[in-house]
Amino acid sequence: MENELIQLLRSNRAALRQRLDSMNVVDIAEQLEQLDKADVVVVFRMLPKTEAAEVFAELDHDVQQNIIEAITDREIRYIVDELFLDDAVDFIEEMPANVVKRVLANVTSDTRDLINHFLQYPDDSAGSMMTIEFVDLQSGTTVADAFAHIRETGMDKETVYTCYVTDSQRMLIGVVSARTLILSAKEQLIGDVMETDYFFARTHDDREELLNRFREYSLMALPVVDNEGRLVGIVTFDDILVVQEEEATEDFEKMAGMSPSEDEYLKTSAWVMSKNRLPWLIFLNFSVFLTGAIVAKFEDIVAILPILVTFLPMLMDTSGDAGSQSSTLVIRGMALEEIKQTDFFPVLWKEVRVAALCGIVLAIANFIRMLIFRYEPNMGLVVSTALFSAIFFAKTIGALLPLGANALKMDPAVMAVPILTTIVDAMTLIVFFSLAKIILHV
Amino acid sequence: MENELIQLLRSNRAALRQRLDSMNVVDIAEQLEQLDKADVVVVFRMLPKTEAAEVFAELDHDVQQNIIEAITDREIRYIVDELFLDDAVDFIEEMPANVVKRVLANVTSDTRDLINHFLQYPDDSAGSMMTIEFVDLQSGTTVADAFAHIRETGMDKETVYTCYVTDSQRMLIGVVSARTLILSAKEQLIGDVMETDYFFARTHDDREELLNRFREYSLMALPVVDNEGRLVGIVTFDDILVVQEEEATEDFEKMAGMSPSEDEYLKTSAWVMSKNRLPWLIFLNFSVFLTGAIVAKFEDIVAILPILVTFLPMLMDTSGDAGSQSSTLVIRGMALEEIKQTDFFPVLWKEVRVAALCGIVLAIANFIRMLIFRYEPNMGLVVSTALFSAIFFAKTIGALLPLGANALKMDPAVMAVPILTTIVDAMTLIVFFSLAKIILHV
Repeated sequence: MENELIQLLRSNRAALRQRLDSMNVVDIAEQLEQLDKADVVVVFRMLPKTEAAEVFAELDHDVQQNIIEAITDREIRYIVDELFLDDAVDFIEEMPANVVKRVLANVTSDTRDLINHFLQYPDDSAGSMMTIEFVDLQSGTTVADAFAHIRETGMDKETVYTCYVTDSQRMLIGVVSARTLILSAKEQLIGDVMETDYFFARTHDDREELLNRFREYSLMALPVVDNEGRLVGIVTFDDILVVQEEEATEDFEKMAGMSPSEDEYLKTSAWVMSKNRLPWLIFLNFSVFLTGAIVAKFEDIVAILPILVTFLPMLMDTSGDAGSQSSTLVIRGMALEEIKQTDFFPVLWKEVRVAALCGIVLAIANFIRMLIFRYEPNMGLVVSTALFSAIFFAKTIGALLPLGANALKMDPAVMAVPILTTIVDAMTLIVFFSLAKIILHV
Repeated sequence: MENELIQLLRSNRAALRQRLDSMNVVDIAEQLEQLDKADVVVVFRMLPKTEAAEVFAELDHDVQQNIIEAITDREIRYIVDELFLDDAVDFIEEMPANVVKRVLANVTSDTRDLINHFLQYPDDSAGSMMTIEFVDLQSGTTVADAFAHIRETGMDKETVYTCYVTDSQRMLIGVVSARTLILSAKEQLIGDVMETDYFFARTHDDREELLNRFREYSLMALPVVDNEGRLVGIVTFDDILVVQEEEATEDFEKMAGMSPSEDEYLKTSAWVMSKNRLPWLIFLNFSVFLTGAIVAKFEDIVAILPILVTFLPMLMDTSGDAGSQSSTLVIRGMALEEIKQTDFFPVLWKEVRVAALCGIVLAIANFIRMLIFRYEPNMGLVVSTALFSAIFFAKTIGALLPLGANALKMDPAVMAVPILTTIVDAMTLIVFFSLAKIILHV
């Protein structure tokens, strides 16, 4: 799709202004990111004031910085005060120190205090992702008055669909959905229609816990309380959709032996990417050297019967992939809470049976193929037996390693690749050469 | 956590009934699944009628079948008519033919027609996942009348937070959020407050498209229209959360070389699991045999210099993992629409630089280590050069294969593992042995 904004900017500014009025803020942000530095600021300044903050929140951090550096202090104050607080915090966290300083110097002192408070919540905690814009009601209010309150203040809130009932100490005592309000009689008291049996999170809860709760109970929003039980914010489903995506991406990266990256692929520099990928490659490269030592012990066999070496790629790749099938399933099952630490024996028992089945099928297929290609039956026996035991060990170890890592409070996804590869390779080689020694008498 | 239901069932049925009243349906379903067949039916029948259908929708398919087989025709009719239509369809799709027959014979003919209609939508299409319970309004209605309409019918609807405005032909002409209704004056007409610039899906749209739209625009619900533009249902965010989870799980499984499984890990039989895992293992096992043929061509070198073999595990594993790092990032980036087909050259250029960087660092580290372990410098040169080119090829091919698969309209995640392994192994072996031949003169 070509960029409408560029075309209109060059041809007809009045039409551009009109088009901006009718476009979705997400689409404006996407097209804005394709403009060059100077043009971004020109178009950004043409945005209706109310939309400017919304578009700003959707922009990439480098474009945000570019805009902030180009606009006046007054414009900064306006935008940051208009931003939802969680968006403002996200943005400030990514800016260099001099930009942060200038931004904080230009916002109202209330906003500054709130931002500073937010910056103290741990990364990936409920506190760091919540929004403080929500509707709170008192239990003594009537439904009619609640509607009046929402009408008065509701436009600023990220969601009016769940309202939170607090007492005079700002303690959360109930929740009431817009649906309940609509379906209740006007004179009823909030205290009588509110739900007192509700889910909530604490500011320090990890976002993965939140994600699981949203998923399990199909929640739309979750109130967040501090240590004293005071309501301090809410987390909404659209943030959770992003968390779920990021958590899955992190697991993909870890399982492929990389440090998780924060940015999109094309926006990450080659330098940062290399830094994310090198540690495990180096670790693997060194640890697999140990496997080389095992091969060295069997060098005499290799010298006598070099044909054995032709089976190494097949044995190592098949067992490696058999193991990663199992570890992937178990790691994913643990992330989705389908598999718990206590499921050690059910998992082991399942993998033992799957491993035996897969191992037997592949060993037989391999034996037949080797006979067809006129290998000695003895040679077929060595390779097929090695293949069976390699798959068997790979699958059981592949499934149990993540559970073991978890028991040791380590991240199962990070442990999986290099350690599994090393262990499985070592076992495969030892079994294969030992069998060759015994059966082929080399 | 121990199972409350079992305890209460054995000790105090009146208390059990009371406890069921106060529990969340998701929790009831979870505990119910742990009971044995007879107890499940006993407890299920104690549920308040209105909750029975909700709990039923949350149960696993085997438990659902168990219940359906034990209850009366009248009870079946009640439950299925109470289910949201999408839940009813989900359930019927998983039942064996005799159960389906009995269920369809016992529901009202309206429900039967609707179910049959739903069963015709393609798997994973918007039509197959939508719900038909939504609030529709006419543009001539006032806001006050809209509230009255919602109050009258709203209890049955999965969401009242977005209402859909249709004309007399049931064509979708606008949407209006509960928020807008609340904030509008009572006498305003729906036609004047509705949004006419809205997102929608068609019944045959794939669920991945829907997911991307929800994620990008933070939607709460999306109306679904048929070919003529008539409103037929809505898809809500909680379904999308499940889709996102399932799509990620599918990609994990495909990238680990498995057919995607439908059920949870512990609920999938060892037999089905083996069937999901065997095809790629066999494919890989056969294709890697070709790699063996390459090694066979260099058998004379191996016989003369068997020490070369000790480097094979290291070379193959490092290049394999370097390649899977790149392919994982590109496949994931494509799934999240961060990387498009047209990004071929930016991706290639990025991977070339990352590959060069990673390759050089590993090659140097490897050379130094080999010197320390007193290998001949010439040998170090062979291994390090082979390592560099293996990583370089693995990374560039690993990144471009998924894009190529996509261009050929094949699933990049499925292609990745076995083909990448085979190609990268073959290249690594050829480069390594050729270098050995030239530099070491064997």
